[in-house]
Amino acid sequence: MAFQPNSERRKLIMVTITTIGFDADDTLWESEIYFADVERKFLELMEAYTVELDAKERLYSTERDNLERFGYGVKSFTISMIECAHHLTEGELRSDDSMQIIQWGKELMQHPVELISGVQETLEKLDQTFSMLIITKGDPLHQRQKASLSGLMQYMNGIEVLMEKNSASYAEILKNYRIEPNTFLMVGNSLRSDILPVLKIGGHALHVPHELTWEHENDLGTPSALPNFTTLERITDLPELLEDFPLPEKQ
Amino acid sequence: MAFQPNSERRKLIMVTITTIGFDADDTLWESEIYFADVERKFLELMEAYTVELDAKERLYSTERDNLERFGYGVKSFTISMIECAHHLTEGELRSDDSMQIIQWGKELMQHPVELISGVQETLEKLDQTFSMLIITKGDPLHQRQKASLSGLMQYMNGIEVLMEKNSASYAEILKNYRIEPNTFLMVGNSLRSDILPVLKIGGHALHVPHELTWEHENDLGTPSALPNFTTLERITDLPELLEDFPLPEKQ
Repeated sequence: MAFQPNSERRKLIMVTITTIGFDADDTLWESEIYFADVERKFLELMEAYTVELDAKERLYSTERDNLERFGYGVKSFTISMIECAHHLTEGELRSDDSMQIIQWGKELMQHPVELISGVQETLEKLDQTFSMLIITKGDPLHQRQKASLSGLMQYMNGIEVLMEKNSASYAEILKNYRIEPNTFLMVGNSLRSDILPVLKIGGHALHVPHELTWEHENDLGTPSALPNFTTLERITDLPELLEDFPLPEKQ
Repeated sequence: MAFQPNSERRKLIMVTITTIGFDADDTLWESEIYFADVERKFLELMEAYTVELDAKERLYSTERDNLERFGYGVKSFTISMIECAHHLTEGELRSDDSMQIIQWGKELMQHPVELISGVQETLEKLDQTFSMLIITKGDPLHQRQKASLSGLMQYMNGIEVLMEKNSASYAEILKNYRIEPNTFLMVGNSLRSDILPVLKIGGHALHVPHELTWEHENDLGTPSALPNFTTLERITDLPELLEDFPLPEKQ
């Protein structure tokens, strides 16, 4: 079995899904691997200064503290690295290391768009039956560039780049596209951003975990606080999951 | 006379305007004064390093070079200042000065939203007759925060934050809102972003200059390359300009 049936799955089959929303980073294409690679280089750089604090924990807390002011995305991450390095090195960060960090930021903005295995054929199958949207967050410039480079926009009815993926922002999208929540399925790798807010407004959600997911996205306290949701091992199992059920004609 | 009549004005009165788009930064509220203040502090900081190059010119060229990768807005400006300082100081930028620049960035994200004189009452008058949109560019998080703090959203049918204000992006907005270009008037302080691309797609545009406008926005080569457009001294003259003409009922 490719999916774990649970009570949420029973709910899923009782309704007609017409629109599927896809998270992008680490659901359709690789993203965290590039951030993780820069983080690794950053930690190496900090080691060279023989810093005494836990650099990884400090970087995460700097990023988290800057979220409200600077939001998600590469530019915010770049600024957070410089700020964190300043504190870790107790004000001894060398100018060319600041510049190195900025250079990593520039490279992150231009990393290749590598589709996650099976995404292309999965979307091609689903395209015959469903309306599809990319619903992502972060830097709109960067996200739209990646969407364009991905070649996946041919399957999509639109792309929405949110500042924060919460119930209110999902509700606004569904309203704008005139989608009833109970006909909407969101697919993504983040419990915080893709699953919980969609379930909360009466939509459906499928969790497709990624090997690497930024700590912030699944940092939700005790598992007992989580409601039921369906988990798929691979996105390629999605058409099969939806296949057995009465499907709508595509409008 | 509050406005300079020219051939463009004649065109304006021949049609029925139903929707007015407003640029935000330096059209509805002050923005460049805060960037200019940070730029002044940045140049003072560079003076303390006795740099030999033209710091102002170098900052502008760094910002311009980073536009394609990092886009507009405070985060991009912050990264550009650090990069520029690294080069100007020949790699001698001190860590606490990098941190000072980041601090300026944080303050820029939180500057007060100060409406330009007369904006509130002008929008209140126009609200009786026209649909209105804010059409701005830059950092969506920051722009939406400012719009919300401005108290002006009560007059607006929407806000659009573009990556780049060009003919294609204006055309997309008009299509999404189902607005015919010849019924649309754009009001703003930037020739590059608010006037030329709107005229190009058959819309109307009013230039309301601001004392301070970022060089990039009006850096368009020789004046002879510019088409006709109407200039208003003050945004408060807008209702009067539109008053004399047959006006539509608001839908």
